Amino acid sequence: MKLTILGCHSATPRTSAHPTAQVLEMKGHLFLIDCGEGTQVQLRRYKVKFSRIKHIFISHLHGDHFFGLVGLVSTFRLLGREADLHIYGPKGIKEAIVLQLKLGKSWTDYNLIFHELESKSAHVIFEDESLTVSTIPLDHRIYTNGFLFREKPGERKLNLDAAVKAKIDTSYFSKLKQGFDVENRKGEMIDNKLVTLNPDPPKSYAFCSDTSYYPEMAAQIQDVTVLYHESTFLESHQHLAEATKHSTAREAALIANKASAGTLILGHYSGRYKDLEEFRKEAMEVFDRVELAEDGKVYEW
Amino acid sequence: MKLTILGCHSATPRTSAHPTAQVLEMKGHLFLIDCGEGTQVQLRRYKVKFSRIKHIFISHLHGDHFFGLVGLVSTFRLLGREADLHIYGPKGIKEAIVLQLKLGKSWTDYNLIFHELESKSAHVIFEDESLTVSTIPLDHRIYTNGFLFREKPGERKLNLDAAVKAKIDTSYFSKLKQGFDVENRKGEMIDNKLVTLNPDPPKSYAFCSDTSYYPEMAAQIQDVTVLYHESTFLESHQHLAEATKHSTAREAALIANKASAGTLILGHYSGRYKDLEEFRKEAMEVFDRVELAEDGKVYEW
Repeated sequence: MKLTILGCHSATPRTSAHPTAQVLEMKGHLFLIDCGEGTQVQLRRYKVKFSRIKHIFISHLHGDHFFGLVGLVSTFRLLGREADLHIYGPKGIKEAIVLQLKLGKSWTDYNLIFHELESKSAHVIFEDESLTVSTIPLDHRIYTNGFLFREKPGERKLNLDAAVKAKIDTSYFSKLKQGFDVENRKGEMIDNKLVTLNPDPPKSYAFCSDTSYYPEMAAQIQDVTVLYHESTFLESHQHLAEATKHSTAREAALIANKASAGTLILGHYSGRYKDLEEFRKEAMEVFDRVELAEDGKVYEW
Repeated sequence: MKLTILGCHSATPRTSAHPTAQVLEMKGHLFLIDCGEGTQVQLRRYKVKFSRIKHIFISHLHGDHFFGLVGLVSTFRLLGREADLHIYGPKGIKEAIVLQLKLGKSWTDYNLIFHELESKSAHVIFEDESLTVSTIPLDHRIYTNGFLFREKPGERKLNLDAAVKAKIDTSYFSKLKQGFDVENRKGEMIDNKLVTLNPDPPKSYAFCSDTSYYPEMAAQIQDVTVLYHESTFLESHQHLAEATKHSTAREAALIANKASAGTLILGHYSGRYKDLEEFRKEAMEVFDRVELAEDGKVYEW
């Protein structure tokens, strides 16, 4: 699981502070999450092979999460993309993108497939054999979802020595990995657990931005490997967080704590703060595994 | 007259090649011409006092001339803008911007005034006491206008020595500047031309992008001080210029020649060319006052 932060600042793009966009690599997928203005240039800057992106998830339709999408869609066209592109986002996203393509008479040659979201309940929006992606309903000024990316449990690992000793024919090994008990060459049933090991624990990533302090989300993301949670403000500006439906670093840490997250990544900083270490310090009073997102930072787990 | 090139490359934005946007300072106005993705960041990078922009002119609704507009409009809101903002561009521009603001529930607090263009004839779209702005109909794949910015003739210059010698009372000086003959203290009529000098010749700037080779425009921009004309291709790719309704450097120079322009600035280069000097070389075979636009370059006349 690899996460590349393309932008992690709130509101207006500046020369060295890009609006929200990140790329999550999980089980062979390259997912783009949010797409503020300039995201396509950030993808180039950090050498992401962005033709591999097949699914884009947009949390909400504020400009700093969304204004770069139409440009990316257009660039895919200019680069001769043929693969389908799936876009998941709030109702209205299709109209906004399609209208702009229409005005420019710049229809894509590839299939652009919109999955418009309206439900206020968490639900699975993408699934394949290796993972699921679900919405995480958030509490912001407009309809907003976070996204939970969750690997499915992998196959059990074969304990080769034990399987050979137990005289199990190799043709049964894939059954063993699937968790079945099997017969050995002597016709004896062998307990699966004696010849296999638990699979690696599935990893998960929760992206939660933008939102006010919303503890209701904790149950859904319980034990998440990594939680990215917005922290637009510090506690000293809690009144602004409340008024604008954003969170403070402390509130993000409270969520991480409640969800027993493995790691908390903070981001979506307001431009008013010069020293981002203040965010880490504040969050660590509540939760001790805190990372500060930075444009261009890459995490691997 | 001062021109700042914010971006002068065609198609997709790249880390060091920005799509079309430029700022023209003329007679106290700061005009923004076109607004590709990332223009607001370029305005910051080149330290343009962009709160002074009151008029934005959009040539056409292809992304590389237009996708940065909604972000700039939103940023003005976030920065607390109060002044009216006038946007001139093809019909449809209002719907595209307003829809996106609506989806984000991010209405501007300042007045956003759209002047939608549909006419295929040149006409004045802005005028005050010191200048006019007119459309220049161009020939591109979609409805496109260039823009002609033309100073009005200034007042005549007083030849102070001559006026004193001619015994003209100072109370008549403003009449002299306006071109009138006046009486001197002896009651004699004094010919204006004897005591005044011609005003500075009015300056003009023509922005012509995107367009195929379109010599019909030359009459309208005759004697223009500076012509910015797109040159997406070199003659070696003339077939691509024709197919995509763009121009070659040579064609841009032919227009400059036909219009007797003072200076020709080339831009809107295709990303396929490594050495932009090739554009200058090709154009100078036809016209000898050629400049190559570069992102961040500032011209003054």
